Amino acid sequence: MKFTRFKVQSSVLTGVLTEDRTISEIKGDLFGKWEYTGQTFSESDVRFLAPIAPNQIIGIGANYVSKTDELPSELPEIPVFFFKPTSSVIGPEEDIIIPGNIEQVKFESELAIVIGKEAKNVPEEEVLEYVFGYTVGNDVTAPQYFHQAGHWTIGKSFDTFTPLGPVIETELDPFNVIVEAKLNDVIKQNSPTNLMIIPIRKMISYLTGVMTLKPGDVILTGSPVGAEFVGAGDVIECEIKEIGKLRNTFAAARERIQA
Amino acid sequence: MKFTRFKVQSSVLTGVLTEDRTISEIKGDLFGKWEYTGQTFSESDVRFLAPIAPNQIIGIGANYVSKTDELPSELPEIPVFFFKPTSSVIGPEEDIIIPGNIEQVKFESELAIVIGKEAKNVPEEEVLEYVFGYTVGNDVTAPQYFHQAGHWTIGKSFDTFTPLGPVIETELDPFNVIVEAKLNDVIKQNSPTNLMIIPIRKMISYLTGVMTLKPGDVILTGSPVGAEFVGAGDVIECEIKEIGKLRNTFAAARERIQA
Repeated sequence: MKFTRFKVQSSVLTGVLTEDRTISEIKGDLFGKWEYTGQTFSESDVRFLAPIAPNQIIGIGANYVSKTDELPSELPEIPVFFFKPTSSVIGPEEDIIIPGNIEQVKFESELAIVIGKEAKNVPEEEVLEYVFGYTVGNDVTAPQYFHQAGHWTIGKSFDTFTPLGPVIETELDPFNVIVEAKLNDVIKQNSPTNLMIIPIRKMISYLTGVMTLKPGDVILTGSPVGAEFVGAGDVIECEIKEIGKLRNTFAAARERIQA
Repeated sequence: MKFTRFKVQSSVLTGVLTEDRTISEIKGDLFGKWEYTGQTFSESDVRFLAPIAPNQIIGIGANYVSKTDELPSELPEIPVFFFKPTSSVIGPEEDIIIPGNIEQVKFESELAIVIGKEAKNVPEEEVLEYVFGYTVGNDVTAPQYFHQAGHWTIGKSFDTFTPLGPVIETELDPFNVIVEAKLNDVIKQNSPTNLMIIPIRKMISYLTGVMTLKPGDVILTGSPVGAEFVGAGDVIECEIKEIGKLRNTFAAARERIQA
């Protein structure tokens, strides 16, 4: 099932996107009890938003090998995790704003996991029971703002740096999809998720050993080899075929900033 | 004014703590319109919770000089900021759980700022208009889980690692208070906030240049020199006199964890 958040006039609504590309509005708790309102919309009459307003966003760093490399025989003891602020989320077709003091940022196409149930100390084999669904994320990054001592926080945190969408697909097999990015129609990233160094089950199980994951938490599972610097005017399409295309254009900030 | 969140039987309520130590319940939006319900409680009949369920928690690293050091003549270009998950928040008197695979963690007493209004690109001189109030935070840390490449995320993120409380004081002069920590009744931290390397106005202004701060965002402003490793059974009291005492006991986890 494909869940969507969308805007009609000034109302923000939630719905299910059907095979014939119409949207059936729903109401209630996406992670609990919800029902159809009976209202339907044509795809062309709405504006798709990020399919969720996340509770928190957790990313994992450097998590793909290239197609010609082998997966490391030993996993890192502590994976590189980072948080992104929820204020960085935008939806499809919105502009990604390049901070005023720099010329370029990087795109990073990723499979994004949406947690549906509170999860603490969950063993790897049960992890998927806590997943509500999957969307596409673009973990936009300004490495110019990485701290020299290794902290990525600021470089990952600018407003508009986390496009999500277009929908949450609940019936995906996350081990069997390809994460793609097309920059100005040229393929730059294209890797199956089995090239992840820390695989999904281990990643989520590890996180639940540290912190209680909550419904609405979003986990960005890392980006394939091939991310590049881009500038104002560039168009990025992040895609997982079974979910859809997340298209955004990079734009220059209107003013220089203090940061 | 001192705002408090508290539990009576199984209800979570919000109130104002008065000078005679009674609590007047309020309802509505803490950051907007609220009113008294007319209900009052005696302090001894309630359990204080963290005074806010934060929207997000942002911390700053290594932000105090010692009393004998001078403030650096030049500020760092990119401060060390990090996020803590909201799932790490606990209230006064709750146990801080030491992860199962280690014996010790560090306490860090801090002045915590509660944002009250959406804030983007705010100049230093206007920053305080966006602050709702102040509480005491303990930025509990397990440096054993810092990533060797510098990422602090996991070491800051365990459940129970962010005690907050006892109240939010809205009338504080943040430039003129002393941040203290007493470990088992012995003073370990005791520094005025003017020993901060990145002062409050600059810290918040910088953050708003990067991301839109939202009502309910909590900023931990860094910990004075003197934080130490502690173990199960140790009692920590973080205190800013004008706000109150945040007391917690460290406890061992009941089981080893995967992380």
